[in-house]
Amino acid sequence: MVHNGIEYADMQPIGEAYQLLRDVAGYSPAQIAEIFRTWNTGRLDSYLIEITAEVLAHVDAATGGPFVDVVQDRAEQKGTGRWTVQIALDLGAPVSGIAEAVFARSLSGHAALREASRSLAGPKPTALGQAEAAAFADRVEQALYASKIVSYTQGFHEIAAGSEEYGWDIDLGAVASIWRGGCIIRAAFLDRIRAAYDARPDLPSLLSDETFAQEIAAAQDDWREVLATATRQGVPTPGFSAALTYYDALRAERLPAALIQGQRDFFGAHTYRRVDREGSFHTLWGGDRSEVDA
Amino acid sequence: MVHNGIEYADMQPIGEAYQLLRDVAGYSPAQIAEIFRTWNTGRLDSYLIEITAEVLAHVDAATGGPFVDVVQDRAEQKGTGRWTVQIALDLGAPVSGIAEAVFARSLSGHAALREASRSLAGPKPTALGQAEAAAFADRVEQALYASKIVSYTQGFHEIAAGSEEYGWDIDLGAVASIWRGGCIIRAAFLDRIRAAYDARPDLPSLLSDETFAQEIAAAQDDWREVLATATRQGVPTPGFSAALTYYDALRAERLPAALIQGQRDFFGAHTYRRVDREGSFHTLWGGDRSEVDA
Repeated sequence: MVHNGIEYADMQPIGEAYQLLRDVAGYSPAQIAEIFRTWNTGRLDSYLIEITAEVLAHVDAATGGPFVDVVQDRAEQKGTGRWTVQIALDLGAPVSGIAEAVFARSLSGHAALREASRSLAGPKPTALGQAEAAAFADRVEQALYASKIVSYTQGFHEIAAGSEEYGWDIDLGAVASIWRGGCIIRAAFLDRIRAAYDARPDLPSLLSDETFAQEIAAAQDDWREVLATATRQGVPTPGFSAALTYYDALRAERLPAALIQGQRDFFGAHTYRRVDREGSFHTLWGGDRSEVDA
Repeated sequence: MVHNGIEYADMQPIGEAYQLLRDVAGYSPAQIAEIFRTWNTGRLDSYLIEITAEVLAHVDAATGGPFVDVVQDRAEQKGTGRWTVQIALDLGAPVSGIAEAVFARSLSGHAALREASRSLAGPKPTALGQAEAAAFADRVEQALYASKIVSYTQGFHEIAAGSEEYGWDIDLGAVASIWRGGCIIRAAFLDRIRAAYDARPDLPSLLSDETFAQEIAAAQDDWREVLATATRQGVPTPGFSAALTYYDALRAERLPAALIQGQRDFFGAHTYRRVDREGSFHTLWGGDRSEVDA
């Protein structure tokens, strides 16, 4: 199940990379196919990148135009992505990239809603010049790779959480190895996940692996730049954005969750914990606002 | 259930607004309380904004410091947010803002994972000067309001989808009216939702209401600017980002869902539809790449 969830979260950012290369960089599908072919000789080497190049290079016989332009942009799904998210919610594993990928598919299928929303205000992307476009494509590769690390981090977190919950004692490195053969998400990348878990079976998350952490450190300026551009130009990047906000939330010193706990204590006496001593507390918000043990 | 889901998606962006005012604008909790008080006299007028100001203004008796700083930043949940997302997935209603709010809470509670992730590379936000901070706060208000419209749009979409699925014939305007009294998300805003559905009971979505569409059109430059800043400065804004990417996806002329359909047809013969004629089709990817009826 989680394999398929990761597959959704692998495909959605690839789609976003395509959209950015098309709308912001101004490349044709044939040119983008070449870019994906080049990417496939590097660290993104995978079956999904390979077939993306094939699909984008394909010319529709009936119209003589790019195949991707004659296909209806309404993605379908068999249900395993949805199931992965539903179980992750039960397990308390934040799989935001998988969720955004599932929602992106369901949104694409709401034809009447999209039709009614086409006139909503917003920027139209403006294509870059040739030299800038090539530099932008390199940045998109960084953003895609960083997002991919996060997608797998979230998926493996869910497997670890399920393993813990049900006492399955799953060997996460072995899972990565199994997926190397025949699966849709088969990729050189999985060997590196295997190596990460072999080196440290109790790895808190893939992001804690030194190699992945270094790669994402190197990628992040470009990742942020691509996302800032997409945000300003109105190109939807739910997958990239979910990955980056997850990364930034994980590394945050403090999260606004403290404020949320305060709000919950205010409206529902749900209590809170303090940073400086043990126990549960409640503030008498409707009274003298003193603090009581709860 | 959906009331509570919307509540999550109302609270999370408020938390993000607080974080941005604190880390990017450089305001103290007491100053931010004042800003929320001012916002509460405008279109954001609501119980949640009111109590946010109260919580932020509160001083901890034990330390003499801001209350919000002594509360552990690990948000808890009772389960209705999660349930809202699980049902939305079954109904095919994209509630990305609610999902991100639920995931943000669960992420905040993973103490060991967060501890292991604190050393991950990334920018530290730098506080603005006084004049810029005030302008930035105005922009955050726009971003928060726009995100709120999207949160409610998604929640009401889910109710409409459930009503359709189960034949409940729910009066969405009446739902908004009911929530005006006593609920956590009670707000002047709900009167406007009521008015939107009274004017047009078959409204495809709240974003199709002329007033909301105009407001979001006016807010969006600031919304995008705030998000670009958060992205560059490393402040996590999963709620704001989910709202904007949903908005941009809805209004997109074409989505990368077409590429995804091509990939699915390539690896699983899942077929696709064409934009120019009826029927289901499959390309013989492993053969001569001709197209066949499916």
